[in-house]
Amino acid sequence: MAVAGSSGFSPTQLAARAAYLLRGNDLGVMTSAAPKLYPHMWSWDAAFVAVGLAPLSVERAVVELDTLLSAQWKNGMIPHIVFADGAGGDYFPGPDRWECALLAAHAPQHPDTSGIMQPPVHVIAVQRILEHARRRGRSTRAVAEEFLDRRWADLMRWHRWLAHARDPGGAGRITLYHGWESGMDNSPRWDSAYANVVVGPDLPPYRRIDTEVVRDPAQRPSDTEYDRYLWLVEQMRRARYDDAALVSAVSFAVQDVFVSAVFALACDVLADIGEEQSRPLADVRDLRSWADRFRAGVIATTDERTGAARDFDLRAGHWISTKTLAMFAPLLCGGLPRPAERALLRTFEGPQFCGHPDLRFAAPPSTSPVAKEFRPREYWRGPVWPVMTWLFSWAFARRGWADRSALLREEGLRQASDGTFAEYYEPFSGAPLGSMQQSWTAAAVLDWLG
Amino acid sequence: MAVAGSSGFSPTQLAARAAYLLRGNDLGVMTSAAPKLYPHMWSWDAAFVAVGLAPLSVERAVVELDTLLSAQWKNGMIPHIVFADGAGGDYFPGPDRWECALLAAHAPQHPDTSGIMQPPVHVIAVQRILEHARRRGRSTRAVAEEFLDRRWADLMRWHRWLAHARDPGGAGRITLYHGWESGMDNSPRWDSAYANVVVGPDLPPYRRIDTEVVRDPAQRPSDTEYDRYLWLVEQMRRARYDDAALVSAVSFAVQDVFVSAVFALACDVLADIGEEQSRPLADVRDLRSWADRFRAGVIATTDERTGAARDFDLRAGHWISTKTLAMFAPLLCGGLPRPAERALLRTFEGPQFCGHPDLRFAAPPSTSPVAKEFRPREYWRGPVWPVMTWLFSWAFARRGWADRSALLREEGLRQASDGTFAEYYEPFSGAPLGSMQQSWTAAAVLDWLG
Amino acid sequence: MAVAGSSGFSPTQLAARAAYLLRGNDLGVMTSAAPKLYPHMWSWDAAFVAVGLAPLSVERAVVELDTLLSAQWKNGMIPHIVFADGAGGDYFPGPDRWECALLAAHAPQHPDTSGIMQPPVHVIAVQRILEHARRRGRSTRAVAEEFLDRRWADLMRWHRWLAHARDPGGAGRITLYHGWESGMDNSPRWDSAYANVVVGPDLPPYRRIDTEVVRDPAQRPSDTEYDRYLWLVEQMRRARYDDAALVSAVSFAVQDVFVSAVFALACDVLADIGEEQSRPLADVRDLRSWADRFRAGVIATTDERTGAARDFDLRAGHWISTKTLAMFAPLLCGGLPRPAERALLRTFEGPQFCGHPDLRFAAPPSTSPVAKEFRPREYWRGPVWPVMTWLFSWAFARRGWADRSALLREEGLRQASDGTFAEYYEPFSGAPLGSMQQSWTAAAVLDWLG
Amino acid sequence: MAVAGSSGFSPTQLAARAAYLLRGNDLGVMTSAAPKLYPHMWSWDAAFVAVGLAPLSVERAVVELDTLLSAQWKNGMIPHIVFADGAGGDYFPGPDRWECALLAAHAPQHPDTSGIMQPPVHVIAVQRILEHARRRGRSTRAVAEEFLDRRWADLMRWHRWLAHARDPGGAGRITLYHGWESGMDNSPRWDSAYANVVVGPDLPPYRRIDTEVVRDPAQRPSDTEYDRYLWLVEQMRRARYDDAALVSAVSFAVQDVFVSAVFALACDVLADIGEEQSRPLADVRDLRSWADRFRAGVIATTDERTGAARDFDLRAGHWISTKTLAMFAPLLCGGLPRPAERALLRTFEGPQFCGHPDLRFAAPPSTSPVAKEFRPREYWRGPVWPVMTWLFSWAFARRGWADRSALLREEGLRQASDGTFAEYYEPFSGAPLGSMQQSWTAAAVLDWLG
Repeated sequence: MAVAGSSGFSPTQLAARAAYLLRGNDLGVMTSAAPKLYPHMWSWDAAFVAVGLAPLSVERAVVELDTLLSAQWKNGMIPHIVFADGAGGDYFPGPDRWECALLAAHAPQHPDTSGIMQPPVHVIAVQRILEHARRRGRSTRAVAEEFLDRRWADLMRWHRWLAHARDPGGAGRITLYHGWESGMDNSPRWDSAYANVVVGPDLPPYRRIDTEVVRDPAQRPSDTEYDRYLWLVEQMRRARYDDAALVSAVSFAVQDVFVSAVFALACDVLADIGEEQSRPLADVRDLRSWADRFRAGVIATTDERTGAARDFDLRAGHWISTKTLAMFAPLLCGGLPRPAERALLRTFEGPQFCGHPDLRFAAPPSTSPVAKEFRPREYWRGPVWPVMTWLFSWAFARRGWADRSALLREEGLRQASDGTFAEYYEPFSGAPLGSMQQSWTAAAVLDWLG
Repeated sequence: MAVAGSSGFSPTQLAARAAYLLRGNDLGVMTSAAPKLYPHMWSWDAAFVAVGLAPLSVERAVVELDTLLSAQWKNGMIPHIVFADGAGGDYFPGPDRWECALLAAHAPQHPDTSGIMQPPVHVIAVQRILEHARRRGRSTRAVAEEFLDRRWADLMRWHRWLAHARDPGGAGRITLYHGWESGMDNSPRWDSAYANVVVGPDLPPYRRIDTEVVRDPAQRPSDTEYDRYLWLVEQMRRARYDDAALVSAVSFAVQDVFVSAVFALACDVLADIGEEQSRPLADVRDLRSWADRFRAGVIATTDERTGAARDFDLRAGHWISTKTLAMFAPLLCGGLPRPAERALLRTFEGPQFCGHPDLRFAAPPSTSPVAKEFRPREYWRGPVWPVMTWLFSWAFARRGWADRSALLREEGLRQASDGTFAEYYEPFSGAPLGSMQQSWTAAAVLDWLG
Repeated sequence: MAVAGSSGFSPTQLAARAAYLLRGNDLGVMTSAAPKLYPHMWSWDAAFVAVGLAPLSVERAVVELDTLLSAQWKNGMIPHIVFADGAGGDYFPGPDRWECALLAAHAPQHPDTSGIMQPPVHVIAVQRILEHARRRGRSTRAVAEEFLDRRWADLMRWHRWLAHARDPGGAGRITLYHGWESGMDNSPRWDSAYANVVVGPDLPPYRRIDTEVVRDPAQRPSDTEYDRYLWLVEQMRRARYDDAALVSAVSFAVQDVFVSAVFALACDVLADIGEEQSRPLADVRDLRSWADRFRAGVIATTDERTGAARDFDLRAGHWISTKTLAMFAPLLCGGLPRPAERALLRTFEGPQFCGHPDLRFAAPPSTSPVAKEFRPREYWRGPVWPVMTWLFSWAFARRGWADRSALLREEGLRQASDGTFAEYYEPFSGAPLGSMQQSWTAAAVLDWLG
Repeated sequence: MAVAGSSGFSPTQLAARAAYLLRGNDLGVMTSAAPKLYPHMWSWDAAFVAVGLAPLSVERAVVELDTLLSAQWKNGMIPHIVFADGAGGDYFPGPDRWECALLAAHAPQHPDTSGIMQPPVHVIAVQRILEHARRRGRSTRAVAEEFLDRRWADLMRWHRWLAHARDPGGAGRITLYHGWESGMDNSPRWDSAYANVVVGPDLPPYRRIDTEVVRDPAQRPSDTEYDRYLWLVEQMRRARYDDAALVSAVSFAVQDVFVSAVFALACDVLADIGEEQSRPLADVRDLRSWADRFRAGVIATTDERTGAARDFDLRAGHWISTKTLAMFAPLLCGGLPRPAERALLRTFEGPQFCGHPDLRFAAPPSTSPVAKEFRPREYWRGPVWPVMTWLFSWAFARRGWADRSALLREEGLRQASDGTFAEYYEPFSGAPLGSMQQSWTAAAVLDWLG
């Protein structure tokens, strides 16, 4: 009966497989992003993973964040990679390339880390952990609250560093010095900025590893792109990862409107937590002021009529307007005037994104199918990323849009019901792409399934 | 967001809609088969409807069967139609055509009924009612048990009539005098037998009504076919519906292997009920002996190697071998030698039926897509009937084939998740056909959803 | 196996029973509140019922609201009862007592209605209808949109009447002239105001009917209370239900903070709909200004520290502070300063309400178990009303409190899983009270189950 | 909100937790029975665990059985424990006590094993694996079929050994030489037989470990009991675990009716698999003949009126009649005359077992609450074992009793919804007992949840 069951896994089966996967990717105190491609801890992966662990084990979710935070830099930065002990050699660029412990004044001596950041989604995980803990018994609640006691100051330092070191001018927008910091590595958003990165003749040689795992080159960045990625790392190394020095030392500097919106939102989330858990009023006040500043910073990038947001290239001095998820940054943090917000929602739900008539599932592609840069199988240039569908569904619920949130959840679950838990999916066929058994995809599913 | 939700209704939504439909088709003490096409009570529809009512209201399910049984003929026959009071005029052939109250010695004066039977699935409903009642409180259990007290003798009379009047020779097979008695009106199974029906010149004129509701002629029988149907009725009228007279009076006489298997099964079910509820031992003994006789009668029609069952045309004196659901009669009642049963299951699950590579859902088509008589949209000549999927899934569970049963249930639910509750479905496209909002389709869904 | 299944109905069974109930209570173009006690259409029942019908049939949900709106008064008021044709005699006070068609200039000649209002929750139903329609096919969407075309002006007139006729002073609070207008008939909120109602010697005699259905007097108001209720009706009759006259003619005049919060919320909901569906900008502007005015009016009643809201007795000139659901009005419409809101949430979730240690389910009792007026079985003086649990869960989702909303939904569903669909429940034992098979309880369950 | 969520985990949450647990107990190629108490592989645990792994990963389920079968003895016996490499020291009696590799001619040199068997439920797991594989893609089906190719002969050897070495007289009943072989270590079934075990003066000294983990002595056997357990091991050692020698060498020899019924059932299951997968006809014939012999052997122990089955003490030469799960052995394998079967079902569902009025959940206690040996917290002397509930629900489905099976499943899931996945539960309070996070409890839940 060839057809039978081809409809995919039922909700209980899917939940079981997602949990089985997460525990299978568990390395003890960190969860690898996926069984093969990524053996280390990624900053925003860890946060999303903790969201998925929370319903399974508040205790284990807390461990995940503790591991990440134990690699926090003294200046407050949470590095985008924490390398698994002794396992650095299998990933490039690894500790030997970054050499943060050696070069950066603020980096920890142990564990090894990279020298850049990723989007600040971590306090979302903290909130989900607290919410799950509330429903459990006293001892579980204590675990969550002790975590907050232990880490409140660290979380504040992280947010403070973002607000100061990454927005020195007070524009209300986070500056990135590498496309990797956006988490959306090869998004069309960075094409023009990367085009201006001139690789120096003295770029130390290297050998890629990612392409040995994912064999389809259409799914991974090209070698030319990779040279530029490495050159930016080289520039940071030479600046010894010094926050003040990076401002001028790196050929790439972009104000990321998506990260900025996430940060505005995260500041509000952390402020809410702070208020509920009676943290210092001064901290809460700082968080609210950053939330306001960055929300305003995001809104300042938007088109009055369409509400679409833009990044700003500091080196080239011009706006970057793309038909990518970044357009929708204001939907995450709010702040748009009503008519613009309505227009932006219509774009999100209309034929350029979720409502494109050929989409298999009504979830937002990373890049619009109608954009000229659209590539349906190429990482952040088109595929649907379940973790992004989750982020929007979670943020929409927070905005009070229960119906919109439920719809994204339904479509996200339909997409995930193939059971591959792929990193990303081809938007039209629904084919799973990237690494399979991706931890954060499983985490999204687990949060959706309650 | 055009695509969203196109995946169909969730299980809770589907259950709600099915129940809403059943209550909407409720005429008080009977449930119409569907809102438009069929305003009266059909015998096997009523039984399946009672299966669907049982989880909603044991009390109401009992009413449905009481209504049907209150129209039982004095000879024991449950007529295939019970006409709603004063509503006969809208259906053809209606009471004026049948004139049973006038012509048949055994027919009740009230309500009006037709003069033929339908497959004896009724005690399946009785069993489901008792099973649901067991889970409810004392008063509900009492309702079910009082029903059994009240109706045991009637159910026995019905089975006794089938065993005697419809198998006078003791072959272990039920004789039909009209294709309609099979419930599978235009199945290829009856083509050759109907071909031998020569319509008399004195067939009283008539006007069809069914084609005014379902406008696509491909989904309904042709006028020539309809003439034959009516001629058989005419022959019965002239024989005054007398059981003994019908044996020779009607041009159509076929031993229906599917009905026979259902009867064998039903006798066992009623015997089980009788044993559990301490009914007369003599009744239970009779039921078991009929079960054995008819099971043997079914097995006697089968091919030793394939296990496929056949009908027998008494008028033409030859076997009728078709690639239809009738082939699988032995899977319902059991009794095949193991190798033949295995072979028959493989046919059921293989490319000729549920495993046909182009099927939308792995549910058995009424006629095999590889049969030459196959018509994908034409009633019992190809479409998938959810109520048959249900019957097989229920019977397979009873056979101890839990996994096979679960698979049919899953596929049946996937098919029904379009929410139309169609009478039948095109096998390849899954397009809903026949009347929509069909009561027994809703009933099947409700039983599946618990 | 006595214990088995005692755990209550599964989600699919519950959904099926709720839908079965709603269709069973369907009188054609209106849904009776329950099979026995209430044979007519109640204003806010109809709205909640439409919320439950929307997932079953957008078309039928629209009919429900059309029926209600067809009884709208010319001044804009939606009357709290629409009497079923020719069925008035079974309810007291019925059309003969109200005599609106005769006395009130604005009342319709047909159908018969009462002369007071109920809480303005109707546009919530409109929004749910539109949301469900969005997920269905084109023709269903058209039904919903045509409804809005047809009824937009009526909905505006209703809101405008509330904003003007019921808040002539512009305080931002709706004045009630009868406790019944609150929907929470015998809530302790009205005790003091009713105490000041001196029944005139010329109160026409009457006979209660409600106590003949619900026999436990502890669940229904006393005769003394009933006299006062009728006296207020008498006063309105004498004022010929004239909006301007009522201001001084009736002994009872209270600004209801709960209704005011619902109204603020409803104005925002209707404004959202208006914006999305391109209704006149002037209407949207009016709605937003009313939303702001009434939100401010609600907040003005609150205690700065606890955030608890109060009603205001216009006749006695003092605030009414009770430990009832009315306290939480600001949680519905928002507007409290953060610390007060946090405090109020803590009260809602803490031992005075949902977190009371003896509660069977963590859903808000109508009156706090720690209040001296608390009566666990007495209507609005203690029992949990599922429809209120639904209203808070819906409103919390709209506030962006997804987790809180989900928790109320879970507890509400646990409570309803007994399958009685009772009007209200004893908070400690979970015993179902009031009329069973209540339409709005079923509606709440259906909305929760998607 | 203390009460909220106290109702236990939802189906998706439960499935996720069960899968998370199973993966957490995964030691690579074997799954430990529970995180703490049992670090090795137990024979029937492994089979049940494979049932739970099958829906998660057919591949991993196959590995579990491969690991177990790789420790099969040359005579065909599957040993009751396979010791994890180098981890034997933490369990008593461990490899040093059994010394099978040294003493037994048929034991493997590696891995270390115990010298006795456990109930032959393994082919049930094989069938579930094949069923799950059928629903997956081609490569998964291949994994399952290659497993069967690889292990068919081993499974046959296991069954052949049971039929011959453990039923030398051909009584149709499996002889046990140790209560542990029943899997129901301290069941009242073995009290009298153990009472006749006279511990020799030369029992080598030992130290228990189990009581250090489970601190409540009421839940574990006493020291006197333990001495007898060890003395039997000593007797086997001295007989060098020789099948022929054991017949007379060991003080304990009981024909276990429950194991015999499981064996009859297992032979039929394996025969079904053999037929479907075209294994040698001679094997299938042997299996069917064993099934028949052991079914007859089980029925021969039963009381004609009640249908209750008994064990037989070969040393004392008398029947052992207990109110334990063993009574119900014929319900597993079938074969009782109808009236006796009905009576036995009534006992199972009535007040002595599942229908006892004080039970928290309608699942069968290991020993009847009305038996004088009943101890509600003491291992197999009263508690409900979820894995037994599963076995009966699975067997009932195979018997064609879909409704009874569904009821056990429902109650089993309700019991497990506390999320502890305890080894066993107190029948009245539902308190979890024994080791928590037990693999086979999680496996039962996963199979139930599909």
